[in-house]
Amino acid sequence: MDPITALLDDVLEEMRGLESGEPAAYIPELADADVDTLAFAAVGPRGRVRAVGDADTEFTIQSISKPFVLALALAERGRESVLQKVGVEPSGEPFNAISLEPGTGRPANPMVNAGAIATTALIVGDDVDTKTGRIVEMLSAFAGRSLWVDESVYASESATGDRNRALAHLLRSHGVITGSVDTVVESYFRQCSLVVTVRDLAVMAATLAFGGRNPVTGVRVVEEAVARDVLSIMTSCGMYDFSGEWLLRVGLPAKSGVSGGLLAVAPSQFGVAAFSPRLDQHGNSVRGIAVVETFAERFGMHLLEPHESVAVPAVRVETTESGRVLHLGGELGFAGSERVVAVLRELAEALPTEAVVTVDARELARAHPAAMIALRAEFETMPSRFRLQE
Amino acid sequence: MDPITALLDDVLEEMRGLESGEPAAYIPELADADVDTLAFAAVGPRGRVRAVGDADTEFTIQSISKPFVLALALAERGRESVLQKVGVEPSGEPFNAISLEPGTGRPANPMVNAGAIATTALIVGDDVDTKTGRIVEMLSAFAGRSLWVDESVYASESATGDRNRALAHLLRSHGVITGSVDTVVESYFRQCSLVVTVRDLAVMAATLAFGGRNPVTGVRVVEEAVARDVLSIMTSCGMYDFSGEWLLRVGLPAKSGVSGGLLAVAPSQFGVAAFSPRLDQHGNSVRGIAVVETFAERFGMHLLEPHESVAVPAVRVETTESGRVLHLGGELGFAGSERVVAVLRELAEALPTEAVVTVDARELARAHPAAMIALRAEFETMPSRFRLQE
Amino acid sequence: MDPITALLDDVLEEMRGLESGEPAAYIPELADADVDTLAFAAVGPRGRVRAVGDADTEFTIQSISKPFVLALALAERGRESVLQKVGVEPSGEPFNAISLEPGTGRPANPMVNAGAIATTALIVGDDVDTKTGRIVEMLSAFAGRSLWVDESVYASESATGDRNRALAHLLRSHGVITGSVDTVVESYFRQCSLVVTVRDLAVMAATLAFGGRNPVTGVRVVEEAVARDVLSIMTSCGMYDFSGEWLLRVGLPAKSGVSGGLLAVAPSQFGVAAFSPRLDQHGNSVRGIAVVETFAERFGMHLLEPHESVAVPAVRVETTESGRVLHLGGELGFAGSERVVAVLRELAEALPTEAVVTVDARELARAHPAAMIALRAEFETMPSRFRLQE
Amino acid sequence: MDPITALLDDVLEEMRGLESGEPAAYIPELADADVDTLAFAAVGPRGRVRAVGDADTEFTIQSISKPFVLALALAERGRESVLQKVGVEPSGEPFNAISLEPGTGRPANPMVNAGAIATTALIVGDDVDTKTGRIVEMLSAFAGRSLWVDESVYASESATGDRNRALAHLLRSHGVITGSVDTVVESYFRQCSLVVTVRDLAVMAATLAFGGRNPVTGVRVVEEAVARDVLSIMTSCGMYDFSGEWLLRVGLPAKSGVSGGLLAVAPSQFGVAAFSPRLDQHGNSVRGIAVVETFAERFGMHLLEPHESVAVPAVRVETTESGRVLHLGGELGFAGSERVVAVLRELAEALPTEAVVTVDARELARAHPAAMIALRAEFETMPSRFRLQE
Repeated sequence: MDPITALLDDVLEEMRGLESGEPAAYIPELADADVDTLAFAAVGPRGRVRAVGDADTEFTIQSISKPFVLALALAERGRESVLQKVGVEPSGEPFNAISLEPGTGRPANPMVNAGAIATTALIVGDDVDTKTGRIVEMLSAFAGRSLWVDESVYASESATGDRNRALAHLLRSHGVITGSVDTVVESYFRQCSLVVTVRDLAVMAATLAFGGRNPVTGVRVVEEAVARDVLSIMTSCGMYDFSGEWLLRVGLPAKSGVSGGLLAVAPSQFGVAAFSPRLDQHGNSVRGIAVVETFAERFGMHLLEPHESVAVPAVRVETTESGRVLHLGGELGFAGSERVVAVLRELAEALPTEAVVTVDARELARAHPAAMIALRAEFETMPSRFRLQE
Repeated sequence: MDPITALLDDVLEEMRGLESGEPAAYIPELADADVDTLAFAAVGPRGRVRAVGDADTEFTIQSISKPFVLALALAERGRESVLQKVGVEPSGEPFNAISLEPGTGRPANPMVNAGAIATTALIVGDDVDTKTGRIVEMLSAFAGRSLWVDESVYASESATGDRNRALAHLLRSHGVITGSVDTVVESYFRQCSLVVTVRDLAVMAATLAFGGRNPVTGVRVVEEAVARDVLSIMTSCGMYDFSGEWLLRVGLPAKSGVSGGLLAVAPSQFGVAAFSPRLDQHGNSVRGIAVVETFAERFGMHLLEPHESVAVPAVRVETTESGRVLHLGGELGFAGSERVVAVLRELAEALPTEAVVTVDARELARAHPAAMIALRAEFETMPSRFRLQE
Repeated sequence: MDPITALLDDVLEEMRGLESGEPAAYIPELADADVDTLAFAAVGPRGRVRAVGDADTEFTIQSISKPFVLALALAERGRESVLQKVGVEPSGEPFNAISLEPGTGRPANPMVNAGAIATTALIVGDDVDTKTGRIVEMLSAFAGRSLWVDESVYASESATGDRNRALAHLLRSHGVITGSVDTVVESYFRQCSLVVTVRDLAVMAATLAFGGRNPVTGVRVVEEAVARDVLSIMTSCGMYDFSGEWLLRVGLPAKSGVSGGLLAVAPSQFGVAAFSPRLDQHGNSVRGIAVVETFAERFGMHLLEPHESVAVPAVRVETTESGRVLHLGGELGFAGSERVVAVLRELAEALPTEAVVTVDARELARAHPAAMIALRAEFETMPSRFRLQE
Repeated sequence: MDPITALLDDVLEEMRGLESGEPAAYIPELADADVDTLAFAAVGPRGRVRAVGDADTEFTIQSISKPFVLALALAERGRESVLQKVGVEPSGEPFNAISLEPGTGRPANPMVNAGAIATTALIVGDDVDTKTGRIVEMLSAFAGRSLWVDESVYASESATGDRNRALAHLLRSHGVITGSVDTVVESYFRQCSLVVTVRDLAVMAATLAFGGRNPVTGVRVVEEAVARDVLSIMTSCGMYDFSGEWLLRVGLPAKSGVSGGLLAVAPSQFGVAAFSPRLDQHGNSVRGIAVVETFAERFGMHLLEPHESVAVPAVRVETTESGRVLHLGGELGFAGSERVVAVLRELAEALPTEAVVTVDARELARAHPAAMIALRAEFETMPSRFRLQE
């Protein structure tokens, strides 16, 4: 076991003692889940999957399909078309709340059932096979392997799906859905019945974390703008009526499912997933929440973590015959660019007026747009012996 | 005008054409605002205030006081005590909605009026003077100068404040407030009547952006944990029933006020603020929103922006007699640590088995906890000739 | 034209000038209604139908079917079984509101769509033909002639019935409905599509007015207890979110339909009905409301009309050899019985102590239970020369 | 004990076994009530008060003041002015629900707290003394004796009255109340703290039952139209979210209070009241409900009771020289008038054509307007030898 994996395992074992909660009871396939199952996985930028616990146990994806089908809808239709049919405001209500916007009938957001059904309706295809085909293809690309539908779970979902059928009919009565209700609802039940492991979920999370490019397969699945939109909506709405508290305590976009899965995304850092079937009163996995929360806290991943002392860029100053070269490295943010300018000014005072000062930004791993805007703007006001190499 | 200021000025002028919306009408002091006023300011980590437009125009802070009084309550009482009295879930409802949690009577969150009143009630002090004194002191520290109450606005707020009094009585009927309703409500009206400029708001935003340390005065105002909590709650609830769409489109924690002010925070990067009295149907400044949105987009500040190619640390390899030294610079994230480990392994293979390989992390501007955990864990598994200097 | 009919005609003509409102627009069959059509009918205890205006114009019964299908459900299942599936509280909401009781999922009452669908589900029959057959038979008995379904309207109702399908699926998700949603919903659409005239509605209303016995055909359709229950529920819930104001102003149990029909019941007095397709914002016929309101006011039919001077029974005193006989006639209420007792006491004082005083109650048209209880109780305390003949 | 009183006593004793429920707990004066207290009273048209159980126990009137203060407001302001400030629709919500109409801010109805506060605000008087003075005077007239305020209960109500103060401030923020919130709320607390016995409540109920004239004192307290309006609103809204079921099961306008009082009205028949401090989940007296329900059922007082065989008037036919005289007695309803006409027609056929037929309606105890309209209309079409004496 490599050291990072060992750390994950530590977190996992600490949470094994949590025994509150019960699996979902509305269909036998979920009710009969082994409540002792526990798994955790993390995937970093280089695509290495670290997994601990029952990492190969299969379960149905359920609501965790929602952000990925949303990604497909955004890719197919564009953001504004999607927003015409579904809102992006948290509803302050449980996952199965009716929550339609007065007047328009738009569901509150794509993370509650009504909004997810509206999203599935947007997927290209007038029949269940076409729609489901596209969805399976997209989610498989996110996971990096071919996913399949558990027909038994699907049959149970369909047999007990009256509330979701009700939502779909309501949506159609408002013109949010225009085609066959059955096509949409059965496609939705099929997307919820896709079989995944905690490894799959971690890879899917990582694909969002790294701007839509699957770090395992190297395949671009969706554009960066789509990944950003999905993460934004997961941040405000992903954990239902627990979203605000989750953001406060954990600080990562996340999505949970009634089968006990949970994934979270540290943008540009990694994707993680946990699995354990016991659920709390919000329908979230008790141990899953605890594992991800502990991991995020221990690894310091909170999205809103502000820092008093800001990151400065790595600056290596090279003395040349004509003056100085400042080699910038690492990542350059806006704050860092202010620091670079300060250094420049010190040099300008210290050096003879004929000395050439060059800033070499070509080795920067990444430059924040704000930083380069600031840097370029600064150079425009400086004498010509100050040079910026991009 | 320095180049960054010129860029801000460009954004400001582009938005001057927006003429929709009306100022708040419920009190004469707001209704009579000059609708042409427009201002914008930004403050970076080194405390430089860049302001354009009517940057010295004074206006009352109104609801923008909410996050800062929340910061005071968190500092005085601690997170868990505050959460016992007010929730952190977005309500999906307007700012003056009643939105009390069934059973407990807790207001939905501290950014709606009911929650802000509950927050003000938490501030130490049993009379208006003591409570208001602490609030003025805290907000002045955030702003970096002494703020004062506009007594005329305060009188109008108090005279028309029946809805807020109603909320306070409701809160007291649920035991959320226990003392004098008048003390709480009048303190609340006074906090809303504090006079600020757009410069002040930008400095206040920047103080949150840099972990609670005012970058202009250098004074620590609140702890980093408090700043993070405030930013988290602003992210999910700061823009009322527009919070989800704001997070999607702009991606920054923000807070608006009915007088036309708006501030936004790019954590560890900068604080910004805008001012223009015309409001949209959500009660947000029309031009203020446009200015901040355009600025955030142009400067690429969206919080959920994921990146395909992650930042690598600046690594400078020095060859010494006994082997190699890897000097790390800039900021080291988890993703970067994976890269460092990969480099180490390449060196391990390329070098003679007796060569010493030292990683010098002492020059890192900032190291992400996850990165150092990963790095240390890796070293524990490596032969002793691999050394980590922290 | 007989004089009463002439009076009805006066009321009708006075209201012809009302031209506000529009017919229902959701299906062409209703949208295309002739907005000038106006009709009114009243049926008294002897079954004489007086009708004026377009009394033979046919239209679909729509929501006016609800109280009569409720009557069928009460007859088939009993009151308590029906109450397990549907409440009897006004919802304060429009006719198509969702209004399910938290926890149980019971619809608020049988007069809103959700409750009417739950009621239709209770009707015996597992397929549309059986269910609809029973419904048509019952409503025909109420109307005194064979009613039939307008297949064109039915087809349109079914084609646009997504909201009602949604309600039915919601009800099934709560276990309020257990069988096929399609069977229930299509039966419901068929019951709404029954064709009636204003004469039919007046006869149906009169059948409720006279305790469940159709005064035209003489056939008992339902028991008195069922008629009373239906009238009670119509009183509190029959006019949707206008029920309270209707009771205040008109004071009669009533039910309206979206096609422009309206019926009202003066218990033990008569049934009336009006028809005019223009609807107000509550979905009630503008002229229909005005006609019934004016009629009820002019004829003094308000249910809650209290009277200062109460009705005394007709007492004819016959002097016989042995004493006196009091012949009671007309209707005897509790108040009247007090009066009878007072007369008895006066006689007891005025007459010789051997005189026999007989109260003959055998000619009473109707004796209120409270009156007879009081009378019998009084006699039990009197000397044996006071005799009650029942 | 007279026989009717004995009957009331039977009902009372049957219900003594009910031991569920608890007294209201929010103030000590109510919490400390003797839970075994039980009383019942009935008042008929001649003003005889029959009372059983703890009929002299005093308690505060609480919400039962609402219909009587409404009567005062209707008398002072007129129906339409009152309706501008408060609605008449049942809210489907508990007594202390907020329930303000969107837009106008009108409370749902005068029987919930918000509406009662709006009603109290309508009472003439700008200070507590004037307002309370008028209220006490009016309720005393209803009760037939001088009522007084329990200052201890009033003080407790005022001390715990935050929710009602909240409602009042909300109403003022909507312009429903315009004067001092304190004046209105303190007046409201005082009206709730008036001390009554079950006898008082029965007399108050009887005053409504007999059209606004107190049957004990003989004093007219309000006009018939006011009494009718109050009874209508009690019918739809008097029992909060239990009003529909109460109308179904009991069928009488009623009002309950949190101290355990309950009154009900059988229009033109009698008023009744019960008292027992244990409350059910709706805040209604458990035994009080049972006593009134049993009484109403046993005495057959349900308002919506329809009758198959309608009351015929007492007709005594006198043969005179010139023809026949029909002496009408008792009460003549519309149904009865049809019967009279039928008799007339039989006589017309049987008698010689010169015979005079006179209908003497002068002895009728009460003639329903509809009946007289019908009768007069009929005579207008008959030959002149048919005469109607009114």
